Amino acid sequence: MPQFMDVHHGMKGITADQLMQAHRADLAIEKEEGVHFERAWADPESGTVYCLSEAPSAEAVQRIHERAGHLADEVHPVPLTA
Amino acid sequence: MPQFMDVHHGMKGITADQLMQAHRADLAIEKEEGVHFERAWADPESGTVYCLSEAPSAEAVQRIHERAGHLADEVHPVPLTA
Repeated sequence: MPQFMDVHHGMKGITADQLMQAHRADLAIEKEEGVHFERAWADPESGTVYCLSEAPSAEAVQRIHERAGHLADEVHPVPLTA
Repeated sequence: MPQFMDVHHGMKGITADQLMQAHRADLAIEKEEGVHFERAWADPESGTVYCLSEAPSAEAVQRIHERAGHLADEVHPVPLTA
C-alpha cells in the first residue's frame, strides 16, 4: 500500500500527551478509510508534526485527519524510501 | 539520543537510485559526527525528501548532509513521538 508523509504546522507547544491523544484519535477510525498511521513525530518548538501512514490515497489520509479534528497542511505520497 | 527530522526541497524527479545513493553517502560518514540516519522518504512529484535520524544535535545532522553534498533546508528536533 502507498506510503504518505503528512505535515501539520502551527502546533507550537504541543505536548507528548496531546500528540498521543491526536494519534489515538486517528487510530480509532483509520480502518474506515483503509488507512494505517504508523508513526508521528513532533517538534514543539517550531510547531511541526509529521505523520507517516500507509493508505489507499492522500485523500483517505486527509479524511481521517479531518474527522479526528486535525486537518493536515500537506499530505505527500512518499513512494521512495531508503 | 535525540531524534531529528530533516527536510530537503527542490528534489523534483528524484529516483529510487538517487535517494539510495544519497542515503548511502550519509551512512558512510555519519559515525564521524555520532549521527545515525534511520530512514529517508521521498516524494519525487513535489521534490521533497524527509530524513529521520538520531544525533547529538541538529548541527551534527547538517554537517553530515553538507559533507555528503546535500545540505538540508530544515532540520527539526522531534523530541515527541507516537
